[in-house]
Amino acid sequence: MTAVERVRATYAAIEAANRPEIWIFLRPLTDALADATAVDAAVAAGDDLPLAGTTVAVKNNVDVAGLPTTAGCPTYASAPAAADAPVVARLRQAGAVVIGATNLDQFATGLVGTRSPHGAVRDSRRPDRISGGSSSGSAVAVSLRLVDVAIGTDTAGSGRVPAALQGIVGIKPTLGVVPTEGVVPACRSYDCVTVFARDLDTADVVMGVMAGGPGTRPFPPDAPLSAPQTPVVAVPRELPGLSGSWRAAFGEAKDRLVKAGATLREIDLTPFLEAARLLYDGGLVAERHEAVGEFVDAHRAEVDPIVGSIVAAAGSVPATALLRDRVRLRDLTAVALAELGDCDALLVPTTTEHPTIAEVADDPIVVNSRFGTYTNFCNLMDMCAVAVPAGTAGDDQFGVTVVARSGADAVALDVARLLTGSGDTTRAPWPTRAGLSATPLMVVGAHLRGQPLAWQLTDRGARWLGPARTAPLYRFARLDTTPPKPGLMRVGAEDGTSIGGELWLVGTAMLGEFLAALPAPMALGRVTLADGTEVVGFGCALDAWRDGADISQFGDWPSYLRYAEAAPSRA
Amino acid sequence: MTAVERVRATYAAIEAANRPEIWIFLRPLTDALADATAVDAAVAAGDDLPLAGTTVAVKNNVDVAGLPTTAGCPTYASAPAAADAPVVARLRQAGAVVIGATNLDQFATGLVGTRSPHGAVRDSRRPDRISGGSSSGSAVAVSLRLVDVAIGTDTAGSGRVPAALQGIVGIKPTLGVVPTEGVVPACRSYDCVTVFARDLDTADVVMGVMAGGPGTRPFPPDAPLSAPQTPVVAVPRELPGLSGSWRAAFGEAKDRLVKAGATLREIDLTPFLEAARLLYDGGLVAERHEAVGEFVDAHRAEVDPIVGSIVAAAGSVPATALLRDRVRLRDLTAVALAELGDCDALLVPTTTEHPTIAEVADDPIVVNSRFGTYTNFCNLMDMCAVAVPAGTAGDDQFGVTVVARSGADAVALDVARLLTGSGDTTRAPWPTRAGLSATPLMVVGAHLRGQPLAWQLTDRGARWLGPARTAPLYRFARLDTTPPKPGLMRVGAEDGTSIGGELWLVGTAMLGEFLAALPAPMALGRVTLADGTEVVGFGCALDAWRDGADISQFGDWPSYLRYAEAAPSRA
Repeated sequence: MTAVERVRATYAAIEAANRPEIWIFLRPLTDALADATAVDAAVAAGDDLPLAGTTVAVKNNVDVAGLPTTAGCPTYASAPAAADAPVVARLRQAGAVVIGATNLDQFATGLVGTRSPHGAVRDSRRPDRISGGSSSGSAVAVSLRLVDVAIGTDTAGSGRVPAALQGIVGIKPTLGVVPTEGVVPACRSYDCVTVFARDLDTADVVMGVMAGGPGTRPFPPDAPLSAPQTPVVAVPRELPGLSGSWRAAFGEAKDRLVKAGATLREIDLTPFLEAARLLYDGGLVAERHEAVGEFVDAHRAEVDPIVGSIVAAAGSVPATALLRDRVRLRDLTAVALAELGDCDALLVPTTTEHPTIAEVADDPIVVNSRFGTYTNFCNLMDMCAVAVPAGTAGDDQFGVTVVARSGADAVALDVARLLTGSGDTTRAPWPTRAGLSATPLMVVGAHLRGQPLAWQLTDRGARWLGPARTAPLYRFARLDTTPPKPGLMRVGAEDGTSIGGELWLVGTAMLGEFLAALPAPMALGRVTLADGTEVVGFGCALDAWRDGADISQFGDWPSYLRYAEAAPSRA
Repeated sequence: MTAVERVRATYAAIEAANRPEIWIFLRPLTDALADATAVDAAVAAGDDLPLAGTTVAVKNNVDVAGLPTTAGCPTYASAPAAADAPVVARLRQAGAVVIGATNLDQFATGLVGTRSPHGAVRDSRRPDRISGGSSSGSAVAVSLRLVDVAIGTDTAGSGRVPAALQGIVGIKPTLGVVPTEGVVPACRSYDCVTVFARDLDTADVVMGVMAGGPGTRPFPPDAPLSAPQTPVVAVPRELPGLSGSWRAAFGEAKDRLVKAGATLREIDLTPFLEAARLLYDGGLVAERHEAVGEFVDAHRAEVDPIVGSIVAAAGSVPATALLRDRVRLRDLTAVALAELGDCDALLVPTTTEHPTIAEVADDPIVVNSRFGTYTNFCNLMDMCAVAVPAGTAGDDQFGVTVVARSGADAVALDVARLLTGSGDTTRAPWPTRAGLSATPLMVVGAHLRGQPLAWQLTDRGARWLGPARTAPLYRFARLDTTPPKPGLMRVGAEDGTSIGGELWLVGTAMLGEFLAALPAPMALGRVTLADGTEVVGFGCALDAWRDGADISQFGDWPSYLRYAEAAPSRA
C-alpha cells in the first residue's frame, strides 16, 4: 500500500470509529495527503525510509508543527507550535505521516485517561471503561487500528498503563536516551517519550528512529545488546492490588515465560513499591510545580480540578523535603537493585485493574495511585520497560511489563519477545540505531552458540545474528589448544575455501574487553564473508597454525567435531 | 626511612611548627607508632603497599575510627566514629598512617578557613593571612610538611582554594568516583573527597587508592587515559576579580603552558561564572539544609554565626526554586561545554586573592563568595580539576587549576604535569586503578608515536607508555598497504627475532573501537614481549604476509623507513 492509500484508509477508519474524544486535533486530510505524496515520491526515487507511510498519532504534549501543544488544557497553548519536537521531526524524516494530536490526562498528570476537558477517552472495546492514561488517546488510536503507531510520554506509567488496558505494546526507554525537547514537562527528572504499537518489531523500529542525537544521554558503551537465550527473570513474591483473575493471568504469563526458556526467581518488591509511593506522598511531586505550576497557579479555573489541586499543592513543598526524598530514593534504589541481583529483568503486571469511568469518577485519586503500583518505580529508579499484552483476565485485557536496568533496553525488548513468542531476535536492537556502537563478529569455533566459550560473548551482552560463511579465501586448522579451537587463516583465492560460522553483534566497547582477554594464539582482524562484506573475525598466530592439522575439508567446526567424536583416534 | 621513623619525625615537626589550630584531633603518638610498626612489618614480609609509611591528615568531616567527626562543630559529634570512612580505610590498607583530624570551615561551609570555633587556620608562610578553606588544616599541614598528604573535601572549591594559597597540589575528582560514605555532607549532589600533596605523582597514587569501589560512579568506559602531547587548553578572555600582579602571574602560567607545547584558546567564561553564582544566590544552597539543617536549626547557639545563617536560610528555599535553578544550571552547562568546544581542558586562576584574616573578618560573606569565582562551576557542571602552584604574585603564592570534563581526570592531571614540568607521564593514571579498564597495546608500525596513524590511538585517549621489544619469536615484513605498514608474524623461536616498537595504554572500550575500525590485512592478538609478558599487539593475514617483503633484519620499523628513504629503489 502506498502512503497515500494508507492515509486515506486511516481517515476513513477514524470516521468509522466515531471516537472524537481520542483527538484534540486531527490534521486536515489534505495536509496529511500532501505529506504522504511526498513520502511516496521519495520512496519511488529510491529513498530508504524505515517508516515509509506509517501513520502516527502524537500525544498533545509533544510539539507538532502547526498544531497547538495544549497538554490537554486549551488555554495553555493556543498558538500552533512553530516546529516539530525532534522526535516528531525524525519520524517524519523516516517516512511517517502525522495524523493528529491525541487527548491525554491534562499535563500528563494521571494514569486514568479521564482528566481532560475533551472528555474521558473510552476503552477501545468496552466504552464504559477507562482507557488508561495519561497517554489515553494515543493508546486507543493504536488499539482501534486507527493509526499504526502513536507517541506517548511516561513519567510514572503513562506509556505503559494504557498499553496494558488497550492490549498493545508500549516501550518506555531508559531516561534521557530519547530527546524530550519540544515536550511539555511533567516531572523533568523522570519524563520519557514512549511509543505505542501493535507489535514489538514496529515499536523497535520507531524507537530506533526517535532515540539518540543532540541533547540526549548516550547509552553506556557497555550496555547489553541482547538478553541471554535463557534469561533469569525476577517476579514479585507478592502482588498487591491484584484481583484473583488478574493474579491468574499473571501466573499464566509467568508460565509462558518459563516454557519459552526463562528461569523465574521470586523477589521482594517492597523497596520498589516504597520508592513508588515517594512519587505521590513525598517531595518528589514538586517537579510538577516546577514544570507547569506558574501557569496552573495563574489559571486555576481553566485547569482540571484534580490536576490543578495536585500541581498547586506541589508548589508548597520545601526544597529540603524534596532533597530528603531524593536521598531516600537513592537508598531504596540501591536496595531494590540488590534485590534484583543478577536477574536479567523483572516481570510485573503492568497495572492493577480495569475500572469503569464511573468508578474512577467516584474515587479519582485513590484508583489512580493504585494504578501506578507497578510502573512508578521504574522512572524513579532509572530503569527501562516494555509493556506487552498477556492475554485476558476475565473480560479484561491483561498486560505485563518487562523491566530492565538503565541502558538495558535491548534486554527488556528480548524478554518481551520471548514472553510473547513474537518478534525477530536476530535484528540489531534499537539502541544500536540510537548511538550505541556495536560491531558484527564472525566466529568459527569455540564461540559458536552451544560451544564452550560462547559465554564470553553472551556475558558481554552480545547478540546472536545467525549463521554465516566466509568467502573462499581461507584454510581451517585444528589447533593444539584447550578447549580445542580451530584457526582460520586467510591464504587467498588459490588455496582458499569457504568456512562456516556464525555472526554475533558485539558492543564495540565489549569487543575491546573480548580482545583484551583473548589468549594466544588467537587473533582478531578482518574476515571477508561470502557476500563480500568484511567483518571482524578470528585469525591465529602462524606458529600455532603450522603446528595444527588442516581441517578445511570439513567446512566448519561442528562438522569436524562430529567427525572427531565419531572416531577420536583420527582427530 | 621506615614508617616508624617517618611517624616520629612527623610528630616532632608538628610540635616544632606550633600551629595548634591546624588540628582538631591529633592521634596519640603511641597509636600512630603502633600503626607504623604494623606497616613496617608488612613491608618486611613482602607486602607491596603503595603508600607504606605515608603520613596522612584527614579533614574532620571524614570519619576516622576512634575520633569524633565534628565537621568543626564540637557538639555535632562527640562520640568517636566507629569505623573509618572507606577512603580512610583504603589509605590505611595501602600503608598510610593517619596522624590526626584537621580543622575546617564548619560543615565545610566556606572557602576562607576562618569559620571555626577552633580558630582561623593561619597561612603557612604569613600568619596574619588566611589559609583558604574549607579544608584549611589539611592544606596547611601539607604545606608546612607536617604530613605527606592530606584528605580534604570539595563542594565549591574547598579542595582547590587552600591548595592555591598554600602552594601545593589539590585534586578534585569527577563527582562520585571517590566514595563519600562516612563524610559529613555539605551539598550531596556536589561533594567530593580530595587529596592535597606536594607533588602530582603522590596525589595520583593517593587518588588511585581512594577512588572506585562499592557505591561509586564508574568512570565512563571511554574516558580518556591521557591528554594529547600538545593539548588545546582554553583560557578565560576576562579575569574578573584579579589584581594586576595576579593577572601577570596567570599570564606567566599561560606562557609556561605554551612553551611546554600546549595551544591556548581564549573562551568566554560568562556561562561558567553565571552557574557559579547559582550556588550562592539561588536555590541550590538548599542542599546545605538537607545535609545538616536539622542539627543547625536545633543548635544555633553552638554553630558558627555565619555558617548558621547560611544553613538556616537554606531551609526556607521552596522546592520549585531549587528545581528551576537546576534547569538553569543544566542549560548553562550546555552553553559552557559548547564554549569549551574541542579544547582538552580549561586553565583558570584557582582563586582571586590572598587576604588577611582581619580583612575576611571585616567582610566575611563577600570575600568568601569572590573566592569561589573560578572553582564553584566545576562541581555544579560535573567537571574535574587539578590545582597546582604556579609561582608567586608579588608576595602571594599563586595557583592555577586545570579543569577537564567529567571523567577526564587523567587529562587534567596530564595538563597539570605539562604546566608544572613535573611528574611521570608514562605511568598509568589513577582512574585505571579505580576501575577504568585499560589494556596495554604493542605497536610496531604506523601507530608508533610520530607515525601517520598514531592519531587513531591519541584520538581515543590512549597513553604512550614508552618503547618496548618483542620476544625473539617474530618475523617482520613490509606489507603492500597505504600508508605503508609492517606485518608482525609469530613464527617461533627457531626463525624468530626480536622486533622493536612501543607500548600504549588504551582504554579497553576504545580498544574495541580501534579493532572495529582496523582495516585488512591487520589483526590484533597476543604478542610476547622481551620480558616474557604477553600484551595485545599486531599481527596480519597470512596472504598479505606472503606478498610482503621480509624486513626483520632492520629490527624495527623506523630503521627500515630510514633505509627506504635513503635508497627508495631498494624499498
